[in-house]
Amino acid sequence: MRPWQRLRRPFRRAPHGGVLRLSPPEVLLIGFALLCTLGALLLWLPGSATRPLAWHEALFTATSAVTVTGLSVIDVSQDLTFVGQLVLLVLIQIGGLGFMTFAALTVLLLGARLPLQQQNLVREALGEIAFSDVRHLVKLVIWFALCIEGIGTLLLAIHWVPEYGLKAGLWDGLFHAVSAFNNAGFSTWKNSLSRDVDDPLVTVVITVLFIVGGLGFVVVSDIYRQRRWSRLAMQTKVVLLATLWLNVIATLILLALEWSNPGTLGALGSDFARLQAAWFQAVTPRTAGFNTLDTGSLRDASTLLVMLLMFIGGGASSTASGIKITTFVVLLLTARAFYRNTEHPTAFGRSIPQETVIKAITVALAGVLLVFLTLFGLTITDSRQHFIDLAFETVSAFGTVGLSRGITSDLSLPGQLLLGITMLLGRVGPLSVGYFLATRQSRGVRYAKGDIQIG
Amino acid sequence: MRPWQRLRRPFRRAPHGGVLRLSPPEVLLIGFALLCTLGALLLWLPGSATRPLAWHEALFTATSAVTVTGLSVIDVSQDLTFVGQLVLLVLIQIGGLGFMTFAALTVLLLGARLPLQQQNLVREALGEIAFSDVRHLVKLVIWFALCIEGIGTLLLAIHWVPEYGLKAGLWDGLFHAVSAFNNAGFSTWKNSLSRDVDDPLVTVVITVLFIVGGLGFVVVSDIYRQRRWSRLAMQTKVVLLATLWLNVIATLILLALEWSNPGTLGALGSDFARLQAAWFQAVTPRTAGFNTLDTGSLRDASTLLVMLLMFIGGGASSTASGIKITTFVVLLLTARAFYRNTEHPTAFGRSIPQETVIKAITVALAGVLLVFLTLFGLTITDSRQHFIDLAFETVSAFGTVGLSRGITSDLSLPGQLLLGITMLLGRVGPLSVGYFLATRQSRGVRYAKGDIQIG
Ligand SMILES: [K+]
Ligand SMILES: [K+]
Repeated sequence: MRPWQRLRRPFRRAPHGGVLRLSPPEVLLIGFALLCTLGALLLWLPGSATRPLAWHEALFTATSAVTVTGLSVIDVSQDLTFVGQLVLLVLIQIGGLGFMTFAALTVLLLGARLPLQQQNLVREALGEIAFSDVRHLVKLVIWFALCIEGIGTLLLAIHWVPEYGLKAGLWDGLFHAVSAFNNAGFSTWKNSLSRDVDDPLVTVVITVLFIVGGLGFVVVSDIYRQRRWSRLAMQTKVVLLATLWLNVIATLILLALEWSNPGTLGALGSDFARLQAAWFQAVTPRTAGFNTLDTGSLRDASTLLVMLLMFIGGGASSTASGIKITTFVVLLLTARAFYRNTEHPTAFGRSIPQETVIKAITVALAGVLLVFLTLFGLTITDSRQHFIDLAFETVSAFGTVGLSRGITSDLSLPGQLLLGITMLLGRVGPLSVGYFLATRQSRGVRYAKGDIQIG
Repeated sequence: MRPWQRLRRPFRRAPHGGVLRLSPPEVLLIGFALLCTLGALLLWLPGSATRPLAWHEALFTATSAVTVTGLSVIDVSQDLTFVGQLVLLVLIQIGGLGFMTFAALTVLLLGARLPLQQQNLVREALGEIAFSDVRHLVKLVIWFALCIEGIGTLLLAIHWVPEYGLKAGLWDGLFHAVSAFNNAGFSTWKNSLSRDVDDPLVTVVITVLFIVGGLGFVVVSDIYRQRRWSRLAMQTKVVLLATLWLNVIATLILLALEWSNPGTLGALGSDFARLQAAWFQAVTPRTAGFNTLDTGSLRDASTLLVMLLMFIGGGASSTASGIKITTFVVLLLTARAFYRNTEHPTAFGRSIPQETVIKAITVALAGVLLVFLTLFGLTITDSRQHFIDLAFETVSAFGTVGLSRGITSDLSLPGQLLLGITMLLGRVGPLSVGYFLATRQSRGVRYAKGDIQIG
């Protein structure tokens, strides 16, 4: 019996109607929910906070950390002690790496369940590494994460230790490196990284950390193994090119829209500083959540663009969320195929199967639906807030981004609970939709076909 | 040669690379664009308006009439003479009936192009009427429209003649009946039907007119032929039930949300008046566009609900637009099938083919995309307006609804052009997407399959 078959056993529908009928996404959701509760308890302890936290503050903070969102109803820099910040960081690390590992495992499980041809596709997507053991995969993921985070910590500490002293500089470096790689967006500073808006080292190190974390383990391991463009899997090429294009285009649009806005780029002295700030603002929505500009001062057009980027998110089985960049690319390719009146979308000389197109469209539409329902709820629970602010926080929660127009801590208790649920669903949802679509079964009952006129 | 084959000939790709390569949706789009231009010219003539209209005012008004939207940058009650209003009414009638006929014809054409089995399905959907001639279909549509509009005019005139005199009462009756049946939403009064907010006759007649117009010719003719529920086509049952449910649920939600809002229901004296107003407000977004309450005074939650209803719209090949209620139902059924982990969604004991599911999801997502792009454009061209107002006008234009939060006439010229294009695409788009998906061809080139990880 292969290791993933062993692992799969508890997930399978028990043949004699047993109790354990959980699918991997259900396991993940329940695991995350338990982790949030445990984290909330730890944050709630007197040693973690400088003031007594309300239960819902602790729960929201823990949920935000486990789902690597970064939205906050407390001031992490003031309200948490060192121990509290450490708890937060551990929750972020477990949440980010746990998801990445689990997503990679699910792909593997899915592979074992699919016909041989598709199984090979999955292995190919995983960079043709021979996973002789599941533990090997977990080790690889952790090793990969610790390496990147270690380098990040070092670079940031070199920069910050002279400024803030050894202990604070090291801790800030570690916290921001881990938070960035896991796309969590939590900062030990009140205004996130605003003070380093024109610092090239911070800008580059932080953005590289969260972009690499957001590419996903499958993509990074493929790059590590192949090293040559022509040998990379289609998925890897798509993710890399799309990430590059999206970041460059978003930077240019934000430069154009915000150049003369005194609340954001307009306040910066040099063109180079503006370029750095625009780059940071363009890449952070997918789905890092750090900010160097005041999100609430962005123009409405920029805000809408940032919302789109937050909705798109990063790579599959990565520390990023959103509908995933592969989903977005498949949608674009499908639109192109539609425009050209061809049957299947193609990329790099390969056709994308209908099954994948359906998955992509379903994930995107389910995302739109979740955002709509949450927003509708928030307009009822928090009707005093501006509509655009509520819409922004909703998409930020769905994409587990953590950018905020500053109203999260002013939300009512039901509003905060709604956002918390949206974070959890936003983190686990897209993977679940993909999983269930791949494993759905024909029922025994057969129906006659009946068509309906669309459009 | 059958009549629809004769009719199809000009649409076919010319075998020797001739000039005429237009598909039905392209013909419709170009025809509508020409009709808008002609209408604008007529409205621009001195006899049509009481003050000289700007070219863009005339063009926007004509486009709004032809696409049966009802958004307006002029005051129809003040700025247009009787001749001008007559021109408007003719544009509405041609736009509404033209589209309905054309949509029914396209279904027929599509039927002739599809395999025999699906051809029969189309015939079944058309209520098993033997269309021995295309002219017969056109005649039926016109006859159906004139009957309903005639009855509506009569009932409204009986009510309004005593109040406004013979000439004015008759004209108001005719104008509102035609405008209602065609889901155009234009009124000869400044505040639409607000003065009759608690008048049961006006409320009932107007809503029945636009609901029947929005059911679509295919559905109505099926009802007319079969008369018994069990014999109705699945499409008819789905449209009827969904219309009923959606209207009832929306009424209840609006009652709950607006009951104590002094700007809307709260201002009305009796509970019966509130019920009427809530009913009207619940059914008008799909996609009539008349109003008896002030749309700008609705709470944000209600506004969002109205936006959803405007996005959904009415029946296929009807005078209504939006993604269509069938599309919405297929999405719901797909979600249910997904939740139950079955392969195909089912309704009334029939399974809905994957092809239809793909069409529905594509139409919905294309709609979301169009709304997003228009809204993004408007936040740039009209950055001073409130975000929720811009979002509302955008969805109203997409669904050719015509409800407005009062900012349409304040929009910049580029903003108005954007809305105009959105109306045209909103009217023709969903039909086009359905058409192109049904007729797309395999290209000669074959690609190897390459899969991508989604979600
Ligand atoms: K984040
Ligand atoms: K309308």
